[in-house]
Amino acid sequence: MSNERELVLEAAQAAKMATSQLANCTRSQKDFALSAMADALVQHAGIIIQANAIDVEAAKKSGTDPAIIDRLTLNQARVEDVAQGLRAVAELPDPIGEVVRGYTLPNGLEVRQLRVPMGVVAMIFEARPNVTVDAAGLSLKSGNCVILRGSSSAHNTNVELVAVMRAALVDTDVPVDAIQLAPGTTHEAARHLMTARGLVDVIIPRGGAGLINSVINDSTVPVIETGVGNCHVYVDESADLDMAVEIVMNSKTQRVSVCNAAETVLVHRGIAAEFLPRLMKAFREAGVTVHGDATMGAFAADSGTQFAVATDEDWGDEYYSLDIAGAVVDDIDAAIAHVRKWSTGHTESIVSRSQPAIRQFTSGLDSAVIMVNASTRFTDGAEFGFGAEIGISTQKLHARGPMGLSELTTTTYIVTGNGHVRG
Amino acid sequence: MSNERELVLEAAQAAKMATSQLANCTRSQKDFALSAMADALVQHAGIIIQANAIDVEAAKKSGTDPAIIDRLTLNQARVEDVAQGLRAVAELPDPIGEVVRGYTLPNGLEVRQLRVPMGVVAMIFEARPNVTVDAAGLSLKSGNCVILRGSSSAHNTNVELVAVMRAALVDTDVPVDAIQLAPGTTHEAARHLMTARGLVDVIIPRGGAGLINSVINDSTVPVIETGVGNCHVYVDESADLDMAVEIVMNSKTQRVSVCNAAETVLVHRGIAAEFLPRLMKAFREAGVTVHGDATMGAFAADSGTQFAVATDEDWGDEYYSLDIAGAVVDDIDAAIAHVRKWSTGHTESIVSRSQPAIRQFTSGLDSAVIMVNASTRFTDGAEFGFGAEIGISTQKLHARGPMGLSELTTTTYIVTGNGHVRG
Repeated sequence: MSNERELVLEAAQAAKMATSQLANCTRSQKDFALSAMADALVQHAGIIIQANAIDVEAAKKSGTDPAIIDRLTLNQARVEDVAQGLRAVAELPDPIGEVVRGYTLPNGLEVRQLRVPMGVVAMIFEARPNVTVDAAGLSLKSGNCVILRGSSSAHNTNVELVAVMRAALVDTDVPVDAIQLAPGTTHEAARHLMTARGLVDVIIPRGGAGLINSVINDSTVPVIETGVGNCHVYVDESADLDMAVEIVMNSKTQRVSVCNAAETVLVHRGIAAEFLPRLMKAFREAGVTVHGDATMGAFAADSGTQFAVATDEDWGDEYYSLDIAGAVVDDIDAAIAHVRKWSTGHTESIVSRSQPAIRQFTSGLDSAVIMVNASTRFTDGAEFGFGAEIGISTQKLHARGPMGLSELTTTTYIVTGNGHVRG
Repeated sequence: MSNERELVLEAAQAAKMATSQLANCTRSQKDFALSAMADALVQHAGIIIQANAIDVEAAKKSGTDPAIIDRLTLNQARVEDVAQGLRAVAELPDPIGEVVRGYTLPNGLEVRQLRVPMGVVAMIFEARPNVTVDAAGLSLKSGNCVILRGSSSAHNTNVELVAVMRAALVDTDVPVDAIQLAPGTTHEAARHLMTARGLVDVIIPRGGAGLINSVINDSTVPVIETGVGNCHVYVDESADLDMAVEIVMNSKTQRVSVCNAAETVLVHRGIAAEFLPRLMKAFREAGVTVHGDATMGAFAADSGTQFAVATDEDWGDEYYSLDIAGAVVDDIDAAIAHVRKWSTGHTESIVSRSQPAIRQFTSGLDSAVIMVNASTRFTDGAEFGFGAEIGISTQKLHARGPMGLSELTTTTYIVTGNGHVRG
């Protein structure tokens, strides 16, 4: 396998060599390249779909979950969608060159902090071909060379997608090596990428908790953790109860397979008797199963809502399904303590009309996003107006919450004097 | 050693438990605590100096470098200095609560990105008691609990310093567990701290390359790399030669033991014959030894300047002494290529009167700070006007260049609606 290591490091080296040329491309040059990539994907959709069919066939044979096969599958319309995604990225403002801070020191030195690309970004992700194209487009727009490491189960698709995108760069000012597929499909090959310090500037894993933990443990390159979301909705004593039903239901059921869906509802004891019958009815109608404490169980039984007694797994895990954990809490302090104990730090929501309660909730928690009288589902780059989303960071370093293009950048200080020396 | 692991995790857990109380302290409460800590250090200077004497004695016996012993040694004046440092930190603005971004979305949702503390910061550093107090003060001011892991050779000093600072917190609103000394003095104990994911939010190593690399390799907690500086000064063809001599000399000799001192000078061939005799004379007078190529050697010989033929180690390493690597380059492209190959990405300086050359240099490099007609020695939190410095980041994630208080923070989004749900 030492040959595989060399191939990975060669790819990373080639990416690093391309960083300077890409970093100095103007917005027009980058947008032209994105548009050429979009055209090429549509033009070569046939060959891409053919390659994808091999991956889909293999996935079916190995008994892969139909939802995963659906995400893996490309057809003409989906190829056109991902191409359209690249055109949308071209429309976004260029984050590079922004003066983040600028001032003149008392001694006359002029300090300017400029936004610049990271350099080489490695993305490690699961079997979703749209992520392959998306990650390439966002990296290119932010001036970063990218090394794409997709799931081995989408390998044939990714080989074709990357080949088409690279070919499209030949007649542009963007270097072809700005986009590369990581060599190898083994875990070992991924590890070589994660330890390519000095060549790779940041690793962004996108996928389930298992993938993310493996990257965190193995990587010596800095990592941005994304997307594990055990999100809570707390219905306060002073909540507008109609609003609370709507927000809980939207947070849980509007789309269950995503990280910003709610997994736990906490209800203040003072309104439980009035609120829970209404919520349980909505749960029953939507086919939601409640995993809860005894009080929840009693209300569920009254409404004929599916119910199970909650265990620690229920408080700690994400369901990604029409299940929700639920507890009645004595007061807002108990709600905050529960969230602090179990949350993954993604998104929590409070439904309340009380300013002091809202202030206590927002200042008492430690999560990337706190919603006030709004659904947890709004934690999203597009909803936040970023135009694009790299992922949702649940770590505190570098970026927290939805990440747009500027979260793929770093800064450099340019300090200008006229012969300044230190005394 | 599993007992040691438990002790480290207990300390980290206690720190984490204190985060919420400290995060909600007002600026006045934090400044009062800083002032109480300063008073206590001065009041208990005697016992601190006694403990320090034990460490100093042991260091002398083991034949430690006198420069290191000097940094380790505390006396009344130095204790008063570190106490004064805490009072200076109290004077700084509080970074917490700043609205970093704020806007209203088309659907009426109000988005506010607020600056909040990281939570628990672990600092791993060498035998410098001033760093113990400094790190505690900066962490407290930025609302972070801190776990201090100093060198085992300063252990007696650190035990006393931390005990005095903690005792001073008893009668304040800042929780005592906001400041803790990491249990244990072994490398294993440090490793337990580096892998305390979920309890420790960030690790900041301060020290030499060996310490920093060991933290990067062993840590699963996010790391901010600081302070390895192989800094370059490039003297362009169009440079003001008087200015160039001053800037090279200041960058190299004003203080040799620091990361922002220059380690390599690159001189454009077009001005070598005119410039190098003047530079070599200045080097000779200051006792600087040049490690260079053949051209440099010839000029050094003419001026009677100490000279050695440069090897790859000379281009790549930091001297921390009155030595400098030197090369004559054919043009600015060669200078940029040299810096890109050998730099650690800390600080580079160009001396030039040519706007196109300056533009090429600043856009062609990939370092935290680029100086234009100014000494590399200005890369410093105090010089940049930050009022305090945690360290100088040479990584691209989270912070790059001098880090002030706000680099010890993260952000959280507060999103306020009036019943908003996603359609």
